[in-house]
Amino acid sequence: MTRRSLRLTWVGVALLPGIAWAAGGGVVGENLLWLAIILMAARLFAPLAQRIGFPAVLGELLLGVALGNLSLLGISYFDTIARDPIIAFMAELGVIVLMLQIGLETRLADLVKVGGRAAGVGLIGIAIPFSLGAFVVGPWLLPGLGTNAYLFLGATLAATSVGITGRVFRDLGQLGTAEARIVLGAAVIDDVLGLVILAVVSGLVQAGTVSLGEVGGIIANAALFLVGSIVIGRALAPYSSRWLARLDSGHSMLFAQVLATGLFMAWLAHLAGLAPIIGAFAAGLLFEPLFLKAFDVPSIVREVEKLLPGGGQPDGKPGAADTRVDELVNSLRETLTRHTRHQHEHMLEPIGYFFVPVFFVLTGMQVDLATLADPAIVAVALGVTTAAVVGKLLAGFAAGRGVRTWVVGWGMVPRGEVGLIFAMVGKQLGVMNEAMFSVIVIMVILTTLITPPVLTLLLRKPPHAGESMGPAD
Amino acid sequence: MTRRSLRLTWVGVALLPGIAWAAGGGVVGENLLWLAIILMAARLFAPLAQRIGFPAVLGELLLGVALGNLSLLGISYFDTIARDPIIAFMAELGVIVLMLQIGLETRLADLVKVGGRAAGVGLIGIAIPFSLGAFVVGPWLLPGLGTNAYLFLGATLAATSVGITGRVFRDLGQLGTAEARIVLGAAVIDDVLGLVILAVVSGLVQAGTVSLGEVGGIIANAALFLVGSIVIGRALAPYSSRWLARLDSGHSMLFAQVLATGLFMAWLAHLAGLAPIIGAFAAGLLFEPLFLKAFDVPSIVREVEKLLPGGGQPDGKPGAADTRVDELVNSLRETLTRHTRHQHEHMLEPIGYFFVPVFFVLTGMQVDLATLADPAIVAVALGVTTAAVVGKLLAGFAAGRGVRTWVVGWGMVPRGEVGLIFAMVGKQLGVMNEAMFSVIVIMVILTTLITPPVLTLLLRKPPHAGESMGPAD
Repeated sequence: MTRRSLRLTWVGVALLPGIAWAAGGGVVGENLLWLAIILMAARLFAPLAQRIGFPAVLGELLLGVALGNLSLLGISYFDTIARDPIIAFMAELGVIVLMLQIGLETRLADLVKVGGRAAGVGLIGIAIPFSLGAFVVGPWLLPGLGTNAYLFLGATLAATSVGITGRVFRDLGQLGTAEARIVLGAAVIDDVLGLVILAVVSGLVQAGTVSLGEVGGIIANAALFLVGSIVIGRALAPYSSRWLARLDSGHSMLFAQVLATGLFMAWLAHLAGLAPIIGAFAAGLLFEPLFLKAFDVPSIVREVEKLLPGGGQPDGKPGAADTRVDELVNSLRETLTRHTRHQHEHMLEPIGYFFVPVFFVLTGMQVDLATLADPAIVAVALGVTTAAVVGKLLAGFAAGRGVRTWVVGWGMVPRGEVGLIFAMVGKQLGVMNEAMFSVIVIMVILTTLITPPVLTLLLRKPPHAGESMGPAD
Repeated sequence: MTRRSLRLTWVGVALLPGIAWAAGGGVVGENLLWLAIILMAARLFAPLAQRIGFPAVLGELLLGVALGNLSLLGISYFDTIARDPIIAFMAELGVIVLMLQIGLETRLADLVKVGGRAAGVGLIGIAIPFSLGAFVVGPWLLPGLGTNAYLFLGATLAATSVGITGRVFRDLGQLGTAEARIVLGAAVIDDVLGLVILAVVSGLVQAGTVSLGEVGGIIANAALFLVGSIVIGRALAPYSSRWLARLDSGHSMLFAQVLATGLFMAWLAHLAGLAPIIGAFAAGLLFEPLFLKAFDVPSIVREVEKLLPGGGQPDGKPGAADTRVDELVNSLRETLTRHTRHQHEHMLEPIGYFFVPVFFVLTGMQVDLATLADPAIVAVALGVTTAAVVGKLLAGFAAGRGVRTWVVGWGMVPRGEVGLIFAMVGKQLGVMNEAMFSVIVIMVILTTLITPPVLTLLLRKPPHAGESMGPAD
């Protein structure tokens, strides 16, 4: 046996990683504590933020800023969280779940209705900030750099990050408004256009020319994914739902179908070069309540339904008491139907409670207050930030009449992680120096942190007379 | 500014990892696909397993075995899943959530009631398999190795992994039985005793002697964590629940409190040297429905309740119709109360649907069918496995009268990841050769895969006349 056993050496080797996870390394242990802290702290900060009138996401962002800058007070324990790949993946899952939820709460037909307006907002929201950055504030506030550097600054100002805005709309229960739908549609368009701009600018920097074929390829790829996955997905969803419900009509199957589709399309979007969250949002658009009716309702709905007398038809002479029974039964039925219709929107909530705060706390932790220590940098950054905000606010006017243009404009303001990615590419290509990079970091910080309170104030203001709140167009 | 900007170089460096996660590397993308596949495949396999009469966990384990051994057919795509640290952390989270759920569904008082029996089962379930491995089957089936190797074999046979058994009991709705409580209690005791054995055997191997102080320290540490956290936790839980509910009585706060406590205590257990899942189980024991009554009920319960006439007192002359109303209202109230009382047990389910299968699929993927290719190794492994099973079945008799001893015995059989960890330590210390390691891997595979079907058959059999199903003692 000793001779033969040599052949089995690789068994032990193959098992090594498995054993490492089972044993739970030190990092795994710390991650458990971090997740507990983020989960609980986010839940504690949320009501505090809401008490002073702001959405929960602001609490989570500020918590992140606080945790991420404790090192300024000499406490460096939390610094490693922001660098941990496992926590980073949890954050990515969080924003994917958030955009899947937002997709589930958005009807595709409503989004198509505002398609023209969204395209206008998206295009202008790219064109104006890009031009401002590349041809105005860049050469003026950061003189002496090359054209390529200004082009990259423009690209960074053109970025749109929809996570923050989507969350604010959702926290305030405004996802059903025309403004929210226009911003969501424009964000999808901007994710495609952002890719194009990044490719064009990178091409100019590296080769001095732009390959039209490459740009066409990027657009074709992204459009193919978006149109293809939504058309095919919506054609398949009713059949897959019926087939899965026949196998197991339980709540867990419904949940698995929706979440697995979201993860799968996030991966597909990533393959097509788009942000995973765009894929998750598109996945949410695939499921209409109608497709999911083959699944069981939650057990409490089933049990209450069983108690109600069948059909609701009076079984004797009508009388005062009978009317009371019928009224009660009817209103109970209505409540149950309402809950059942929206069950697929709410079922992801526990997953969301767990992961979504990780994304926003981690986003807050990227805010390095030390960048604010240099007055010269801050002054330039304020100028660039002004251009960044003005550019997107102007885009809001493309939303047309009947909607609150300021809400749309501010909804496009946060640059979030997308702006940072663009700046990073510019730095890797060697066109962006440290000063410009710091300026962009501050711009991203400011646009990301200012938006939630401003949007809250705008959304709280009652709409002007004559401005419709319903679906536009 | 160019001079000053040098000071800010580290801003970019500090942001690098953050940007890496925002950009979503290739690995992050693949992980999304893997999670989608595991989630959906587990949900598809579960009803198939249940259709042939077995718990869902068997479907997940076999799915893992299939995915993990596709490389035998030349498909090596899935091999990297088992090695990915992010998927591994998801698996760890899965078994932590599972044990937290099991803890929530277990009343501490019921566990204390079977404490004596559980201690007996735990002690004998360590002593007999250890003796069999170290002094009987080791020297007999693997002759020519040193005493230390046999001691390590004994330690491996003494291990208990409660994840598989807990899941089978839960899948079959048998967590409320005395047998389930005895197995859970014995598993907690065995986790402590397993640590002690590992320390003693390692001490003998490395120093030739055992430090009584070290052993005492391990026991004191583990006991301090278990008793301390449960006593302090249960004293604090009612106050923290009331305080948190005052801040925000929503469902999300209740969810966050329970899940964050589970993660926190998993981390504490890890610090005390115990398995994180023991901490999660202990955390589940802290929360009694009574502590959580300050939290809101789910919105559907609240809305149905609002529709019901107040107090249930007849407001007019009693009549046939009035009786009908009262009856309906009373049964509705009863349904609502039942759902509210158990809400904290069910609220983790979506998290569980997502993560728990990751653990069991990954456990299945550790099964390397190639180990079964060598008949000599397999023959020895079958002998060792028999000793492993017999040793734990004998421990079942310590459960005493009034319970199904075979159910308790088989509940202790799976060695799972704990057995692998012990074997790995032995290998790292150089006392265990490749042949013995392969034998142990096969033993772990067999005890882990055999238990779910056997336990299902035993639990399906009606209890003998005269055997009580209620709480023992």
